[in-house]
Parts: sequence; structure tokens; C-alpha cells
Amino acid sequence: MPTPPRHLLAIEGLEPPHIADMLDLAENYALLNRSGKTQRDLLKGRTLINLFFEDSTRTRTSFELAGKRLGADVINMAVSTSSVNKGETLLDTASTLNAMQCDLLVIRHAQSGAPALLSQKVEAAVINAGDGTHEHPTQALLDALTIRRHKGHLDNLVIAICGDVLHSRVARSNIHLLLTMGARVRIVGPPTLIPAEAARLGVEIFHTMREGLAGADVVMMLRLQKERMAGGLVPSSREFFRFFGLDAEKLAYAKSDAIVMHPGPMNRGVEIDSAIADDPVRSVIGEQVEMGVACRMAVLDLLARNLRRNTRI
Amino acid sequence: MPTPPRHLLAIEGLEPPHIADMLDLAENYALLNRSGKTQRDLLKGRTLINLFFEDSTRTRTSFELAGKRLGADVINMAVSTSSVNKGETLLDTASTLNAMQCDLLVIRHAQSGAPALLSQKVEAAVINAGDGTHEHPTQALLDALTIRRHKGHLDNLVIAICGDVLHSRVARSNIHLLLTMGARVRIVGPPTLIPAEAARLGVEIFHTMREGLAGADVVMMLRLQKERMAGGLVPSSREFFRFFGLDAEKLAYAKSDAIVMHPGPMNRGVEIDSAIADDPVRSVIGEQVEMGVACRMAVLDLLARNLRRNTRI
Amino acid sequence: MPTPPRHLLAIEGLEPPHIADMLDLAENYALLNRSGKTQRDLLKGRTLINLFFEDSTRTRTSFELAGKRLGADVINMAVSTSSVNKGETLLDTASTLNAMQCDLLVIRHAQSGAPALLSQKVEAAVINAGDGTHEHPTQALLDALTIRRHKGHLDNLVIAICGDVLHSRVARSNIHLLLTMGARVRIVGPPTLIPAEAARLGVEIFHTMREGLAGADVVMMLRLQKERMAGGLVPSSREFFRFFGLDAEKLAYAKSDAIVMHPGPMNRGVEIDSAIADDPVRSVIGEQVEMGVACRMAVLDLLARNLRRNTRI
Repeated sequence: MPTPPRHLLAIEGLEPPHIADMLDLAENYALLNRSGKTQRDLLKGRTLINLFFEDSTRTRTSFELAGKRLGADVINMAVSTSSVNKGETLLDTASTLNAMQCDLLVIRHAQSGAPALLSQKVEAAVINAGDGTHEHPTQALLDALTIRRHKGHLDNLVIAICGDVLHSRVARSNIHLLLTMGARVRIVGPPTLIPAEAARLGVEIFHTMREGLAGADVVMMLRLQKERMAGGLVPSSREFFRFFGLDAEKLAYAKSDAIVMHPGPMNRGVEIDSAIADDPVRSVIGEQVEMGVACRMAVLDLLARNLRRNTRI
Repeated sequence: MPTPPRHLLAIEGLEPPHIADMLDLAENYALLNRSGKTQRDLLKGRTLINLFFEDSTRTRTSFELAGKRLGADVINMAVSTSSVNKGETLLDTASTLNAMQCDLLVIRHAQSGAPALLSQKVEAAVINAGDGTHEHPTQALLDALTIRRHKGHLDNLVIAICGDVLHSRVARSNIHLLLTMGARVRIVGPPTLIPAEAARLGVEIFHTMREGLAGADVVMMLRLQKERMAGGLVPSSREFFRFFGLDAEKLAYAKSDAIVMHPGPMNRGVEIDSAIADDPVRSVIGEQVEMGVACRMAVLDLLARNLRRNTRI
Repeated sequence: MPTPPRHLLAIEGLEPPHIADMLDLAENYALLNRSGKTQRDLLKGRTLINLFFEDSTRTRTSFELAGKRLGADVINMAVSTSSVNKGETLLDTASTLNAMQCDLLVIRHAQSGAPALLSQKVEAAVINAGDGTHEHPTQALLDALTIRRHKGHLDNLVIAICGDVLHSRVARSNIHLLLTMGARVRIVGPPTLIPAEAARLGVEIFHTMREGLAGADVVMMLRLQKERMAGGLVPSSREFFRFFGLDAEKLAYAKSDAIVMHPGPMNRGVEIDSAIADDPVRSVIGEQVEMGVACRMAVLDLLARNLRRNTRI
């Protein structure tokens, strides 16, 4: 087993055995959670700080649950980013976190690279919970685990990631993880929502759902990130749904046992039709949330084995 | 002892033995709390989520304390209701809560019936912490326990519920509970603040404090819910206090040992005179808050005995 | 050892042995924190409520960490002060806190004296976490502990407190503590930011950094409290920095081993130059935050020994 990394800042750069180890451990936690067992002593005496510069009730709650189920002291710090010189205050924040002897730091920030910057200054293990349009690695892990539970493996699967790829850190992390694990990744969306560098990432690009979903094992919808779009470029919801929203007709292009995913929260009727989102056989959206807690427990567990600070008692 | 219910959504429909059991258990918790004992293991490993779509520091804190005293992992989720299609997102929220393996869900929502809707979709035991103008069952339990501690019983007591009955879920839950337990319930207020269906509930209706309080054992004041009133119908505070605010003169109509209650937070000088609110003999307002924690512990305890999910260790 | 006080409302009035005891105990907690040990049982079953009427992520987090490391149940209550009759609601809040059997109450409030008022009404031990322009006693303790760790003692040190003394509760608490412990205290700032009563406190007053810092052992910068200044009196940041901002040139007036302090959060380039703030030898700003957690643990520990309520189990 390879040495676990000090931080989890991105999927890009991780090796297949690292990823497989994390998924295996997360699978164990998923089973433990279902059986109602807890591992109270694993992070007892450890301080986990949820430092959220952007609001996210779901992700924050998922990490809070994961930390508490492992026995950590969990502190939520919601920080407004209205201060003027953010670069400087981020370093002051690092100094404060070190002084408070934070062991595990979960950070969400609107600026790409902010978690990496912090990780150079703090003694804590840093977990990127989403930074700008860069990465959201635990989301990619939970997506991969969900896929593996349904398909048994990741390699050689055809996975279509659809919609607003341009503004999506979820897409970016998923592309890196799935390609690393040997899957065939397609991105599907209007040219205005496909990033220019997509081609060099090793994915196939499609501009119609019919072509993009043909023969897919997994259909992964993305949230339309209207808040990250410049005014003039926001597509109309109705038109977007007509061409790229997932409904029964479009899903029929994929394999008959293809699963449907969405990172949430969904814009029903925009990215996805309600009947598909709630389909008990095809939709695995609820399971994604469940695997989210399990993956975060696995990541906290792995990073805690490699902390700089003395073991607590 | 009857089978405990899966949820606590309303007082309406509960049988007297259910209510008596909850009050007896709450009385035990009140004594434990005073003696400084805790029951750390009872909810150890259980996840309690406080899902508040409306702000309420007091009620949220009371449930948080109750959960922590019993050893649960308590997660606060404050949710803005600004999203467009609330009906759908409530169902998505249910799916998320199930995936997070929430055991006990405390919900406050501006829409009557939202907790009942959620309870059909979640595996957690649901506790209604106030929904629209419908019910607030734990408030009625704590009020009943406070009364019982002072009067020894509930049956045959004369209880006057006074003020803005129309907009009060507290009044509605109290009316159901007190009538079920054999008390004689009066509602007292201006015709504009008495609900049309009051008569069929089995209460007596009065429009003056002199008549309504005559011979009462308990005077229960309500908060004036100005935020739920249409603009033109908001009574002036001064005029409201003159006719329906509780002061020494009006309290004199009740029995000489009548106790005074208020669910808080009080509008002093509007619903109640400060001298009455702070009267150490007549006012039991502080004790209501204390019994609130005890009743919530009892409810959590009872519902946890009947959870669908496996027992945690 | 003297009887510990019931509350910690102010430094003014404390005797030297009280202060020395608190610093000694805090030093122990600082060592425990560094070694990764915890004292989970000390406050087990105790309820600590963080009642913040003003926002302060740092101070709230520091108390939350301190309470959790000692095993207390910690509840955060952020309260808006938009209500009309604050005096009355503060008393209602006291009644609520008693009913909830709060053991340790940490309060921050915009009005000087609010914690003292509350302490007369609650059974909990009250810790003032900053009230108006009055005091912030745990900040003075952590500053004193940081100084003592670097200088070995407090008596006869020359300590220059610089900047916006007028609006600073930090300065006020520090002046009381340092004078009580035998230090020589100077305050340095423009006449408009020096309080009129400064002379009678027993400090020396200087209006230039050159004179004020000459021969100082400790240079303690303050935050410019623009939010507490009337519009016309707010100094320009550039002019303030030129005359009173700490840079290498001004620091050279102090002793060559003088340490530099700031209570945070810093306005870099206004009160202090970044190069000085980040100087690993001279700046002890990070250590102040670390000692903050340790001092709060010591205060919670001491006050918990003297609680009115029964010992919990």
C-alpha cells in the first residue's frame, strides 16, 4: 500500500492504487454505517474544522457527520469573503488554525487553489471541499464508489458527463479520477459550456445527448452553475432542458442498465426530469449522498494516520 | 403501555395513555437534569438533525441540548426557503436525510403539514418543532407538564388560552392535548383573532378577559404573531394590551392560585405586564423552558425505541 | 490559593494571586494541548453556551474548542440585537439560560456591562468575551501568558500598548492586568484615540511611537476599531500607518529583543507592516491565539470548580 498523502487537494496526480485504497476503505465505512456501528475512538481528541468561505449545507453536513461518527471534535467556521485583501487574511487564517492545533481542515473557497495555498502554511491535513472551478475531490470519490457498487469496476465503462462542464469542479475531479481508473469518459453539452482544454484531457466531446449517451453505462448529470456564468451567457432553462435535460427519451440512448447520477442539489425540470431523478432502478442519486459520508470518513481516517502532530490520547 | 408512535407530528390523535407516558418520562428527565445526571449512552451513535426552515434560537437550542444530554450526534441545518419549488426540494431533502442515515429529525417549517409530508419519505423518526399555523406538539407537552407539576393533574382544570389564537400553533396543540386529558379549555381574544373552527373543537369562547379568566386555574398567554398577520389586521400594541394584555387587574379575575404561562419570547407590555411575567409565585414561564428540555429528552428517548434502523452500538 | 471567583467579568479588581493562578493553570493546558492530551472528563455533562450578540468567529471558536477539549456540551447561540427593548430581553434570556441549566456562559455583547448584568440573574458562571468598550478579560490573560513565556515574568517589564486605545476593551483589560502584576504600562497613540481617563489609570501616555517605544520590552498593537468610531473621526489608513503603524523603523526604538503582539484580526498595512507581523522571531501573534485556547480552558476549569449547581456525573 502506498504512503497516504498528507492532504487531499485534488484527484489530478493521484495514482490508481491510492484511489482504489480510498474506495475500498470507504466501502467498509458504508457497510459500517448501514449496520449502525461507529468508530468513536478513531479521531477522539482530534480537532476537525469545517472552514467554509462559500455556503454549502450538504457538503458541510456530510463532513460534520463523518467527523462526529469517528469521534472528532468538529467546529464549523463560516467565513464571509467580504474582506478586502483575501490573500493576506488567508495566511492569517492559516496561522490561527495552527495555533488552535487543528488536525483536519476541510475547506471550501470560491478561489481555485485556495486549499493548496493553505496546505503550505498549516500543520493540519487539508481536504479540498470545492475550490472555484478547480476540483472537488471527495465528490469524485463518492461518485466512483457509487458506480463501482453498481457496475463492479470502473475500467472500460463508458461514462457520459453532461451539461455545464465549463463551470464544474465536480466534472473536473470526475474526469481525472475516471480516466485514471481506466474508464472511457465523454463530456456532453453545448459548445459554450465545454471548456477549451477539454480535448487535451483525453475525453471525447459530444454536443448532442443522442450521440453522447449512445451505449453509455453511466449518465452523470451536472448542476447548471448559473451563479458562475456571466449574464449574457446564461441559457434559458426551458431551452437547456429541451436539448440537454435528461428525460426518458434521451436516457433511452444509453445502455438499458445505465445508471443516472447527479451531485445535487438538482434543478428539476432543468438538468433532469423528475420522473428520472426519482426512478428507483435507474437513479442512484440518494446513494451518492450516502457514499459521500462514507468517503469522507475514509479520507479523514487515511489522512489522520499521517498527521504531523503527536498522536492524541 | 401502548406502542410508541413512529413520529411526533401532532398532538391531535394521540390517546390519553400516550400523553401520560410522555409526561411521566419527561418528569423523570426533569429530575435527572436537576440532579446533574446524564444519560450519555441512550442515543450514543444516533444522528439527530435539527432542520430549521424558520429561525428559532430557543427551540433549536432546546432540542440540541436534549439530544446532546442523551449522547446523540447533533447536526444543525438551517435552510433558507428562498428556493422556488419548495415541494420538490423537500422531497430531495428527505432523500438526503435518508442517505445520511439520520435517526431523529426535528423539523420546523413555515408550511403546515411539511413535517407530515417529510415523515412519509424519511426513515428517521420525525418530530414536528412547529409547522405553519398547524401544531407545535412538544410545546403542548411542556406546557402540560408544567401545569401538572403545579396542579397535580390536568383533568377538570379550567385553562384560559388568551390572545392571538388564530395564528398560534401553540394554541392548537394545547387545545388538543388539554381537551384529550379532560381539562376545560377556554379561548379568549378579540373576534378577529379567534379561528372560525374554534367552536367545533370543544372549547368555550370569550371575548373579554373578565369573563374568560373568571375562575381559571391556568392563564396561558400567547405571543402576538404579527409576522403572520396581513397588514391591515395588525392590532395596535397599546390597544391590545389594554383589552387583552395580562396585568394584575385582569389576573385578579382568575383563581387566587392561578398560574401564568407564556411560550416566549414575550412582548412585554403587549401580551403581558412585566410585573406579572416576573412574579415568582404566579409566573411559571421559566419552568416552561426547563420542562421543554425534559419533554424533548422524553420524546427523543421514546421515538428512539421504535426506530426502523438497526440499533447502534 | 484564594477562592476562585464565581464569574470572570473583568480583570479590574482581580488580585495578583488570582491572576498568577490562572496563568499557571493555562500554562499547563498549553503543554497538554501541544502533547495532544485531552481532559475529556473534566466538564463531562456540563453545558457551555456561547451567547454572542456580536459576531466573532475567532473568539467563539476558541471558546468552543476549549469547552469541547474539556468534554463539555457546547451550544452556540448567535443572537441578533435588532429587538427593541434589549434590557428586558437580556433578563428573559437569563431566565431561559437558567431553565436550560446552563453551567458556563460565555457572552459577547455590544453594551458595556451586559455580562455583569446577566451574571446577577443566572446560575451559570459567566465569562465576559468582550462587552462594548469595557473589558475582554480572557484576551488580557492570553496576552499576559504569551509575554510571561517569552520574558519569564511580568513585573518591571516596559509594555507599550499602541494605537486605538480609546475604543479598545482589549487595551483596558491589558492595562488592568499588567499594572496589577507590576509591569510599567505605556499607551501610545494620537490624542484623539487616547481615553480622557487614561492618566488616572497609572499609565504613561505618549503621542509618538519614537518616545513610546523607547526601551520597551513588549510592543502591543491594537486593532483600529473603525466600526466604533463616529464618521468624522476615522483616521485615514495611510496617515495612521505613517505615524502609528508598526514597521521595522519604529520597532527599532524598542529593545532589540522586544516582542510584537496583536489581538487580531490584523489590518495589515494599517496597524502593522506585514514583514513585522510575519517575523518569526519578533512576532508572537500566532502564539497569542494558541494561548487563547489554553487560557480559556483554564478559566472554564477554575470556574467549574465553583459552580452553584450539583456536580454532574
